[in-house]
Amino acid sequence: MARDICVCLDFLTDAHKAQIERTARSGGMNVRFFTTAQLDEAAAFGRTAEVLYSCVPKLFKQCKELKWYCCAFAGVDVYCKDPSLFPNEHCQLTNSNVYGLTIAEHVVMTALMLLRRMPAYSRQAFAHQWGKAMPIRSIHGLELVMLGTGQIGRCVAQRMRALGAAKVIGVNRSGRPAEDFDEVYPIEKLDGLLPSTEMLVMAVPGTDETAHILSRERIALLPESACVINVGRGTAVDQAALMEALNAGRLAGAALDVFTPEPLPADHPMWETKNLIITPHIAGSTSLPYTCDRNVDSFCEDLENYIAGRPLAHLVDRTLGY
Amino acid sequence: MARDICVCLDFLTDAHKAQIERTARSGGMNVRFFTTAQLDEAAAFGRTAEVLYSCVPKLFKQCKELKWYCCAFAGVDVYCKDPSLFPNEHCQLTNSNVYGLTIAEHVVMTALMLLRRMPAYSRQAFAHQWGKAMPIRSIHGLELVMLGTGQIGRCVAQRMRALGAAKVIGVNRSGRPAEDFDEVYPIEKLDGLLPSTEMLVMAVPGTDETAHILSRERIALLPESACVINVGRGTAVDQAALMEALNAGRLAGAALDVFTPEPLPADHPMWETKNLIITPHIAGSTSLPYTCDRNVDSFCEDLENYIAGRPLAHLVDRTLGY
Repeated sequence: MARDICVCLDFLTDAHKAQIERTARSGGMNVRFFTTAQLDEAAAFGRTAEVLYSCVPKLFKQCKELKWYCCAFAGVDVYCKDPSLFPNEHCQLTNSNVYGLTIAEHVVMTALMLLRRMPAYSRQAFAHQWGKAMPIRSIHGLELVMLGTGQIGRCVAQRMRALGAAKVIGVNRSGRPAEDFDEVYPIEKLDGLLPSTEMLVMAVPGTDETAHILSRERIALLPESACVINVGRGTAVDQAALMEALNAGRLAGAALDVFTPEPLPADHPMWETKNLIITPHIAGSTSLPYTCDRNVDSFCEDLENYIAGRPLAHLVDRTLGY
Repeated sequence: MARDICVCLDFLTDAHKAQIERTARSGGMNVRFFTTAQLDEAAAFGRTAEVLYSCVPKLFKQCKELKWYCCAFAGVDVYCKDPSLFPNEHCQLTNSNVYGLTIAEHVVMTALMLLRRMPAYSRQAFAHQWGKAMPIRSIHGLELVMLGTGQIGRCVAQRMRALGAAKVIGVNRSGRPAEDFDEVYPIEKLDGLLPSTEMLVMAVPGTDETAHILSRERIALLPESACVINVGRGTAVDQAALMEALNAGRLAGAALDVFTPEPLPADHPMWETKNLIITPHIAGSTSLPYTCDRNVDSFCEDLENYIAGRPLAHLVDRTLGY
């Protein structure tokens, strides 16, 4: 019986393919590569494949013999929320926690844009207006709260501290300590932190527990000087409440990369919300060579585990959703 | 005879004033504070003052007995280019090299905005368009060339290295080594560096030597992937050549905080130049408490020197212009 690996991704270079082939061959496995423009061919090959490395739910569903699906994205909420996507009940799911660096650079960029009043300066520049200097703030000496202490949160914390942030507070489910944070608290303590939060960065997975985790009530707890950045899932924010707070000046600014729904319709009021930076879910895009390299490294690491019969390192807990 | 210090600045807090008064009193000197809305009163008091701490050239000119003028800005090109502003021939001039932190944060912000395609994403957001992911780049692994290795250049280099830049090359007049840079070259070597420069950051003073230092010929030497950031003086860039290169796609992007003239007129073609981020000379604004604190510290340090009869630490070389 052929032990096949089906790979269906658009970002792979020849070097990536050679790396995957080398690893596959070392375990006597056979690999074929497809792009997302070749979904039918991929599905035909994948029907009897043991392993799938892709990011396309409907391809996953068609690979009936699959023992392991490595999702090339970090967020696997779509799979955890919909068990019917699983082609069989034994298939293992791993994700790719390799987006920390690029997402952290997005966070540093948008944090500085918010602190330095770029939404207002950009609007003036679009209108050909040479504006006056407005009060700005700095990452130097800033205290920030990072909701989510996974790979993304840690990469953000590292950069903020390197840029002179006074304190980076992590908040996660259990309050378990995490490297690179000055302090870590469980989610139950969040309400107590919010009234003194200048910058709230959110990178939590899309689960039932995180739905509207930044609720209307919590938005009301933030000071007027607070800025909010969300790079996780749009479901984590009460968007209507956030828009109201921004438009009323009860929050200093926000930068959202994720929304419900996506794409954001052209007539959505979000586009005209005050002091809001909108990006179209690109913080963790797969265009950065560094990210793509780590993605393939991460898959090959687990492919070696798979071949050797060891547990997979990047296994998703489907109950938790990450 | 009264030994008077005239202070005419808008950013001083009560704590700053107390700090200056304490230092003045320790040398038996008398200090009075004015804002730039009180120029006439300041000039009346300043006519017989020994020391002026301000940023208003026409006030400086009226303080006929002045022995020392501490300019609260870093750039003193206006004074060095026009000796007629000096109220007498013996007056010493110092400047305030305290803008490194805020300007470096502006550089980090705009560098990320350029590498991550924010000019295009912002334009789409203004048009309510949910755009597609575009190829981006990272500070991680980036090589950059910093023209100017003074306090601003060093603060930029520190931050870029902390964010994982592969190499920060400094370029200055003489090629003298400077802390925080991987390599430093004299200006004569710049042309040899440009063809492989991905990111050129400019923070040079406005002097005859730096006028159009980024000339049409040098812009042509940069690769198509290069981005240019200027936070020094608008005179340093051949603006017409830069606009042409950006509009023709011969450069990936630019972020300019300084221009000729300032303010940039509403009908200037700069506003509509492709992949250009325009800010109205605010990178080094005096709104950041940290910057204001360092400004007053720097003045008081030299006030102690002045009182003790020691040489001033922040003396400007009027021939060099900085």
